[in-house]
Amino acid sequence: MTTDHGTGPLVRRGPLNGVLVLDLTHALSGPYCTMLLAEMGARVIKVEQPPAGDVGRYYPPEVDGQTEFFNAVNHGKESLLADLADPGDQPLVRAIAERADVLVENFRPGTLDAWGFGWDELHARNPKLVYASISGYGQTGPEAWEGAYDVVIQAESGLMSVTGFPDGPPVLTGTSIADYLAGLNAFGAISAALVQSRATGEGSRVDIAMFDALLGILGAHVFGYLAAGIEPQRAGNLNPLATPFEIYEVDDGAVAICAPTDSGFAAFVELLGRPELASDERFAGVAPRLANRDALRAELESALAGRTRDAVVELLQRGGVPAGSVRSVPEALESAQANARRMVLDVEGTRLRIPGHPLHLSSVDDDPTRTRAAGLGAHTEALRAEFGFG
Amino acid sequence: MTTDHGTGPLVRRGPLNGVLVLDLTHALSGPYCTMLLAEMGARVIKVEQPPAGDVGRYYPPEVDGQTEFFNAVNHGKESLLADLADPGDQPLVRAIAERADVLVENFRPGTLDAWGFGWDELHARNPKLVYASISGYGQTGPEAWEGAYDVVIQAESGLMSVTGFPDGPPVLTGTSIADYLAGLNAFGAISAALVQSRATGEGSRVDIAMFDALLGILGAHVFGYLAAGIEPQRAGNLNPLATPFEIYEVDDGAVAICAPTDSGFAAFVELLGRPELASDERFAGVAPRLANRDALRAELESALAGRTRDAVVELLQRGGVPAGSVRSVPEALESAQANARRMVLDVEGTRLRIPGHPLHLSSVDDDPTRTRAAGLGAHTEALRAEFGFG
Repeated sequence: MTTDHGTGPLVRRGPLNGVLVLDLTHALSGPYCTMLLAEMGARVIKVEQPPAGDVGRYYPPEVDGQTEFFNAVNHGKESLLADLADPGDQPLVRAIAERADVLVENFRPGTLDAWGFGWDELHARNPKLVYASISGYGQTGPEAWEGAYDVVIQAESGLMSVTGFPDGPPVLTGTSIADYLAGLNAFGAISAALVQSRATGEGSRVDIAMFDALLGILGAHVFGYLAAGIEPQRAGNLNPLATPFEIYEVDDGAVAICAPTDSGFAAFVELLGRPELASDERFAGVAPRLANRDALRAELESALAGRTRDAVVELLQRGGVPAGSVRSVPEALESAQANARRMVLDVEGTRLRIPGHPLHLSSVDDDPTRTRAAGLGAHTEALRAEFGFG
Repeated sequence: MTTDHGTGPLVRRGPLNGVLVLDLTHALSGPYCTMLLAEMGARVIKVEQPPAGDVGRYYPPEVDGQTEFFNAVNHGKESLLADLADPGDQPLVRAIAERADVLVENFRPGTLDAWGFGWDELHARNPKLVYASISGYGQTGPEAWEGAYDVVIQAESGLMSVTGFPDGPPVLTGTSIADYLAGLNAFGAISAALVQSRATGEGSRVDIAMFDALLGILGAHVFGYLAAGIEPQRAGNLNPLATPFEIYEVDDGAVAICAPTDSGFAAFVELLGRPELASDERFAGVAPRLANRDALRAELESALAGRTRDAVVELLQRGGVPAGSVRSVPEALESAQANARRMVLDVEGTRLRIPGHPLHLSSVDDDPTRTRAAGLGAHTEALRAEFGFG
């Protein structure tokens, strides 16, 4: 599974075979990015600061002596214990940087420059280097210096303000969405920059911000505001522009049902055994359905009563109406579809299971196991020898 | 701004200069992906089905005769009006596919195969082609055939189940997060595949699912469940593992404050003028603060009373404590930081403003304007001539 597709001991088969990544990241956004690079076939050397290394090694829960968190986003990487601020360790790291194709870091802006690993210096020594920074607000602009965690960015981007119910408070999305999006943006930007770097020898400075990452995906709220000054509103679990396109309660939970067009609505109510609703003047057309949304909901929930999530979804999907169950995370993870898509992976020789990633390519293997994340500094001696500091 | 970096009329300077994209997408996820490819310097030829073209042309609001939605995710592309199912139009599209570096599509699985534009057929004719499909559940697995919209995937992935308050229902995240993530995943996977395709001449089949996209970013909920069987819970606007790391009310709204470590907490309460809280036995340490969360919140909100969002954020950030305002989308979009980061762009010759994207690279221009999206079929005649059907 991880043999000689590149020059490193952990390299997988993939489109980034032959790409060497110097990984100066910690916590979530950066390690997620470099894990994806490793999954695509890059060789990733992760530098960890003494004495303890990446903070992700210490977030519980732990299984067989290693944390789930650290394994989930650091499997497939070599670990080099080296202090970026220590003149004794810097030459080794600089030697790797001078050979690397990619450098990724998520320190506060300016930190690496102070240690002599800034873009200007490394670009001069290694012009092909793609140098990517991930931060809260980016490397430029009046707020670039500010500290940020995911929750700060969910607040400041406006995402919280459009999540939740009209009569309730703004609500956090229940995952570290800004961290993950920033990691994905960095992965994509680095890969695009590599296309050029490989062809011309000229690298790029990549500057990814969690703030930009969220601001860039606010969709209809941004469109309405920019085009027509429409003030975004929290809409709870409804779609303000169309119905049925929302969540309905059933006997054992809730389902999402999408039948907003006239033909979709007719198909939906036929499947429910209530075909007369399609010709009811209150519901005949997109505008009448919106105007009589509450009455329509009452009719539909009465027709849905006595049915389960699974029965409703099966009935509607078989009839061509998109629908899905409101599931728990374990239900989703253990589903047949998640299994078929390798969204849970086993870690060899341990009881660990870790999340899979969403990048399915014919040029990568879709085996269901990965190797365990490297112990802190496990590759230090081998890397010292390889880069001439043995 | 958009001159001869590639062979097309709209090509921008960027790392994907020289890359030709055949864009068979519509609505949001696919067009977002190909817009990012265009922003990175690719030439994008968008094929639209007669008579009406992409449904995104018709989502209100409209400005100066074109919708905000369509411009936001389709600027910088050429428009070719051609019916993929029509034997009269197929040869032109096939000629473009045989020369293209990338094909992107978001039809239901199997649709393009039926029209003679499937992976097997095009890969045989053009081995370098990176062929990317975006769908609800992917091209494989027992649910691949099912229809899906963003709301269906937010439900089925478990994201809804972990968003909202413990005593309230599951809540939708207030943007089409599954669509955007799938588009970003496709952009990154395509770019990675291009690194290989450019070097070896061998393309990839890329298979992106909205379902995988959300399931892959559920973070702590997945980690706790996979490692220790912990059932994910909705936590509202709190962090269940640490405090202060949450939302607090102030005089004119709410703020996010992150000071979970002992040193961070001490700095925070010092800045608030309540240094004695750091040595209060109820709050001295991560575990005591969690155990006495409600009492701590009461103390902090009393210390925060009489202050505004801006004053609190300024005070804390200047003192090294990450904090941010819970802002509306317009507040975020019109902020100095969003302006500095080009997160709102002007459209030349119109009153349109459109959202910027989060991919900042030194190899692309960060000019603040874009050209207007092409009219339906605006490039049809030129493309017929260029590809030998004039």
